[in-house]
Amino acid sequence: MAETRATEKRGDVAIIMGSQSDWPTMRHAAETLDALGIAYDARIVSAHRTPDRLVAFAKGAKADGFKVIIAGAGGAAHLPGMAASMTSLPVFGVPVESKALSGQDSLLSIVQMPAGIPVGTLAIGRSGAVNAALLAAAVLALSDESLAERLDAWREKQSAGVAERPSDEA
Amino acid sequence: MAETRATEKRGDVAIIMGSQSDWPTMRHAAETLDALGIAYDARIVSAHRTPDRLVAFAKGAKADGFKVIIAGAGGAAHLPGMAASMTSLPVFGVPVESKALSGQDSLLSIVQMPAGIPVGTLAIGRSGAVNAALLAAAVLALSDESLAERLDAWREKQSAGVAERPSDEA
Amino acid sequence: MAETRATEKRGDVAIIMGSQSDWPTMRHAAETLDALGIAYDARIVSAHRTPDRLVAFAKGAKADGFKVIIAGAGGAAHLPGMAASMTSLPVFGVPVESKALSGQDSLLSIVQMPAGIPVGTLAIGRSGAVNAALLAAAVLALSDESLAERLDAWREKQSAGVAERPSDEA
Amino acid sequence: MAETRATEKRGDVAIIMGSQSDWPTMRHAAETLDALGIAYDARIVSAHRTPDRLVAFAKGAKADGFKVIIAGAGGAAHLPGMAASMTSLPVFGVPVESKALSGQDSLLSIVQMPAGIPVGTLAIGRSGAVNAALLAAAVLALSDESLAERLDAWREKQSAGVAERPSDEA
Amino acid sequence: MAETRATEKRGDVAIIMGSQSDWPTMRHAAETLDALGIAYDARIVSAHRTPDRLVAFAKGAKADGFKVIIAGAGGAAHLPGMAASMTSLPVFGVPVESKALSGQDSLLSIVQMPAGIPVGTLAIGRSGAVNAALLAAAVLALSDESLAERLDAWREKQSAGVAERPSDEA
Amino acid sequence: MAETRATEKRGDVAIIMGSQSDWPTMRHAAETLDALGIAYDARIVSAHRTPDRLVAFAKGAKADGFKVIIAGAGGAAHLPGMAASMTSLPVFGVPVESKALSGQDSLLSIVQMPAGIPVGTLAIGRSGAVNAALLAAAVLALSDESLAERLDAWREKQSAGVAERPSDEA
Amino acid sequence: MAETRATEKRGDVAIIMGSQSDWPTMRHAAETLDALGIAYDARIVSAHRTPDRLVAFAKGAKADGFKVIIAGAGGAAHLPGMAASMTSLPVFGVPVESKALSGQDSLLSIVQMPAGIPVGTLAIGRSGAVNAALLAAAVLALSDESLAERLDAWREKQSAGVAERPSDEA
Amino acid sequence: MAETRATEKRGDVAIIMGSQSDWPTMRHAAETLDALGIAYDARIVSAHRTPDRLVAFAKGAKADGFKVIIAGAGGAAHLPGMAASMTSLPVFGVPVESKALSGQDSLLSIVQMPAGIPVGTLAIGRSGAVNAALLAAAVLALSDESLAERLDAWREKQSAGVAERPSDEA
Repeated sequence: MAETRATEKRGDVAIIMGSQSDWPTMRHAAETLDALGIAYDARIVSAHRTPDRLVAFAKGAKADGFKVIIAGAGGAAHLPGMAASMTSLPVFGVPVESKALSGQDSLLSIVQMPAGIPVGTLAIGRSGAVNAALLAAAVLALSDESLAERLDAWREKQSAGVAERPSDEA
Repeated sequence: MAETRATEKRGDVAIIMGSQSDWPTMRHAAETLDALGIAYDARIVSAHRTPDRLVAFAKGAKADGFKVIIAGAGGAAHLPGMAASMTSLPVFGVPVESKALSGQDSLLSIVQMPAGIPVGTLAIGRSGAVNAALLAAAVLALSDESLAERLDAWREKQSAGVAERPSDEA
Repeated sequence: MAETRATEKRGDVAIIMGSQSDWPTMRHAAETLDALGIAYDARIVSAHRTPDRLVAFAKGAKADGFKVIIAGAGGAAHLPGMAASMTSLPVFGVPVESKALSGQDSLLSIVQMPAGIPVGTLAIGRSGAVNAALLAAAVLALSDESLAERLDAWREKQSAGVAERPSDEA
Repeated sequence: MAETRATEKRGDVAIIMGSQSDWPTMRHAAETLDALGIAYDARIVSAHRTPDRLVAFAKGAKADGFKVIIAGAGGAAHLPGMAASMTSLPVFGVPVESKALSGQDSLLSIVQMPAGIPVGTLAIGRSGAVNAALLAAAVLALSDESLAERLDAWREKQSAGVAERPSDEA
Repeated sequence: MAETRATEKRGDVAIIMGSQSDWPTMRHAAETLDALGIAYDARIVSAHRTPDRLVAFAKGAKADGFKVIIAGAGGAAHLPGMAASMTSLPVFGVPVESKALSGQDSLLSIVQMPAGIPVGTLAIGRSGAVNAALLAAAVLALSDESLAERLDAWREKQSAGVAERPSDEA
Repeated sequence: MAETRATEKRGDVAIIMGSQSDWPTMRHAAETLDALGIAYDARIVSAHRTPDRLVAFAKGAKADGFKVIIAGAGGAAHLPGMAASMTSLPVFGVPVESKALSGQDSLLSIVQMPAGIPVGTLAIGRSGAVNAALLAAAVLALSDESLAERLDAWREKQSAGVAERPSDEA
Repeated sequence: MAETRATEKRGDVAIIMGSQSDWPTMRHAAETLDALGIAYDARIVSAHRTPDRLVAFAKGAKADGFKVIIAGAGGAAHLPGMAASMTSLPVFGVPVESKALSGQDSLLSIVQMPAGIPVGTLAIGRSGAVNAALLAAAVLALSDESLAERLDAWREKQSAGVAERPSDEA
Repeated sequence: MAETRATEKRGDVAIIMGSQSDWPTMRHAAETLDALGIAYDARIVSAHRTPDRLVAFAKGAKADGFKVIIAGAGGAAHLPGMAASMTSLPVFGVPVESKALSGQDSLLSIVQMPAGIPVGTLAIGRSGAVNAALLAAAVLALSDESLAERLDAWREKQSAGVAERPSDEA
């Protein structure tokens, strides 16, 4: 996966995160997109430490060919909402688990956006990162029949993988 | 707006809610879609009191021509997540403000979905309902140039409407 | 215990859980039922990943001879409430401790059910699983004198096992 | 309803509450039992101000012919758990909404019981009171076919009462 | 210290706790009383598993010669409040840190007592146990000049022990 | 009551509060002491706006003849803990309900004292104020037989005042 | 005050807020600065609806002659942190009380900034707005002896205004 | 760094903390000041255990030549607010992460100051300590051009250090 992630190749999805420390969470979004055959570009864009990079990215995201933005951040997590303020592309936010408050601060900072600028927010941590990718896939699948089939297959496989009974060995 | 909402006419967006008492919140989603010229269908689908209706709706939503589902519910809010479990369409959840816990229960019940079934969650209450509509618009605008222009115009008008200075008369 | 659990034998109690990862918690319900001589069937029924299995289970639970359902789930825990929406059997919910929010999300998602569909909710985690079994036993004991005696004996033994004074060696 | 409640007539269900101020909440349990044709006895039993009454009630509840106890209390709500410690009957707890903390204290004081003494806890406030009655009905219906039918009818009527679409006039 | 604690000797202070698992916290109360030369008796009194023992203890505490009761418990912590309901002695409560909710449930279950039955509540965990002992000492010192001097000496020593500057070696 | 409160007469109990706005809460402590025949002195002592007054009060409280201090404050409530840091008298804290956070900030600011300086904390708001007075009475009653009898009478009257059954007219 | 606020005159302090609806809170900052004789400029700068205005303001604030920025916002409150990311001037944040979550979201969104970009955060609501002004004054007073004297006088007057005893008439 | 910290040399900034156990957090403030070339003095001043030292420090801070005070404390954290009550210098508070409540108590105890006495509060833990130093630097830089340049350089270096893309090796 690392090769795909590290290339300059653009894709339909931009995965942005506030810092390198968010990557262990956000890589689950990347891996899920990989599994679904969706090209993406993963970048570090810090709302606070690199505000110019954020402005350049968000204002240019549509022209750069992105269709969906996945943004992960922790603590006073401003990246998803600020990206959403500068693009009309759909933005999905992933609250990264923070140290002291376990991501409660991240969640509220992302989800409680005022009327006018939406961020579709997923669960705190890894589950949220996986689901941001699946939601991006659902959006892209609206106009990509092949992806729609791959997504359905992914979900069927997921359902089929649920055991009938719990196992003490698991 | 009431006429549009009450008709049988299908649209691209389904607005579902757990009960009539959610409508004062969810109508803000409807009104925002109206303002953007997006057709929708608003229905009451209670995960708990009408589970069969939920199954029928969610499994048939794609075949019925819906592209995006907006689901609002309060308290132990299971509607958005259960709808998402039975469709691959994008589902956006609106936590309706609950009486005792002010929507904190609604928010956690909607946003903390396990990996595999995503619900893009918006803010508690009216802001979330407006933003669910805007997020649905952003998704639909990906393949509808005219809507993309209307959405951009809506946002520009919003920006232009922000006064330079606070007013004591406001 | 594993043999009992893994057999196809039905019992009075169904223990259902959202995923294999809930079993380390829910097995305490199973072990408590074992200790009280109550037959049960433990299954994985994911509200989100296997909604059809949930519908089939919940709608058939009464006909299958179950009298009480114990349902454990974590995060946006919809399993107990959705099971309760499709059966008139008593449903007892166990909030499984979640990673980021320590089961606060699980608790609220289970206990804050709207009027009309009850879920009797126990404590977060292992204590809740043990107590779900004890509550099921209390219900079944209403019409099973022998079980009532076993339950009373279990509780007397519990009381007798409380030491008079704390021990530094414990 | 007031007549039924005020009589000395015993029933299958005891509704106990910590103070008169809990009655506006707990009367919803009484009204729901009335609607289902279940006899009950509603009493004030304060764990803190009348501990002797609590001991007498809880220890005698089974001999008095009660089958299920519904206990409502607010704040540091000890009534449900203390009743459960002195009876093997099933106890269902209703967290009454408290002034400062909106029932969060009531909920945690009731639901977080240690392993060994279960209290099946319902939602904060009126919904919880209604559902405690429904859960009691579900338990009693296990050995009362007529009640089972009445309960099913109640639930069907509830489902049928859910409108298809939201109404601006509601 | 263990000898003092394990003897049958009564003292001015009763330290009671809900279970053996509370002792690692509550022993800090015992050790602080030891340091101040205050006799005490430490016992396990479970409100839930040994309600009769609780009634016997609390009703007899004054006659047994106790002047202050320190009660520690976790989760749905009913011990301090129930003891207070059956004695007019001052009761000080120590919220023991619980597993899932870190003692937030313990704290609210102890401190949010209704008007009429007071429990003076200390901090969650070890600090609270130490302080319960110090508060008991302050109460006893009101009529024990020698203890008052020992308490003042203890506090002066504490103040004197605060270093002027932080140390990297500490 | 106002006369008693407004006089310069010292008593056994000092009631201090952070501001005039705390009086509607703290007067319930005063009224309860009145009912029990305990003399007190109620003063405004702001930890933040009048730190010198706080130092003078706390350091002189014992010499002034006070035996117990009741301290009420809201928000970042430092008064009880700071008073406790400068006296060895028992200090009981009352968290006054704050506007935005409903007294959760007041509660934590008062109860979470570090080991070494105890504050016996009561419930948020009016109940806590009443109970602070009752706890002070319990402490004073240890060496005042007449007060002990008055306190017992007060509590018996309280128990006797609990109705047997809830009333729709109440 | 309105005249001062509404003029184009720059001052040492910029008061910015996310929307007109924040003004009833933030005007308390303005009034406090007025009382201290500090010139300021109050503006609406929405991080989400007018991101360009935010960039222009924050990047130009130092050149415009501002020395301190006071920023108020509610919900997912990104304004203070984003302003701080684009200026090296001290930024003080005021969490405006939000509807559903009473400003808990505002507080966490403002205070939990990552290492590198500081926002000095004040209390939720009106108190925070007053204190932001006082903190700005304290900063400016470091190099303005006259202001230092006015600030000291303001504080002495505040201390002197604290009554000795609570009043029933207040 | 230890040398600088341990010397008697005064500086522009006083770093005070409630106990030695706060130093692992607060040393990050010291290290950040070191990096910016700002002299400081780090001391332990316990509001609770050494109230006299607190009074002496806070009242003398301005005369001692300090310009900014950084105060860190945990739990019922009274140090920052009490220092602010006795000086007109700007005070910045750092909530140290507490054991049971992860610093939520520390945060609320510091930030929720009443109108009149401001404490500019930073994030819980290490990030807050670093940022308190940066905020102090921003304040001092208002009248120290050389420091302003060093601060700008520090921030530019920080921005430049943000990688473009996440790394699996990091």
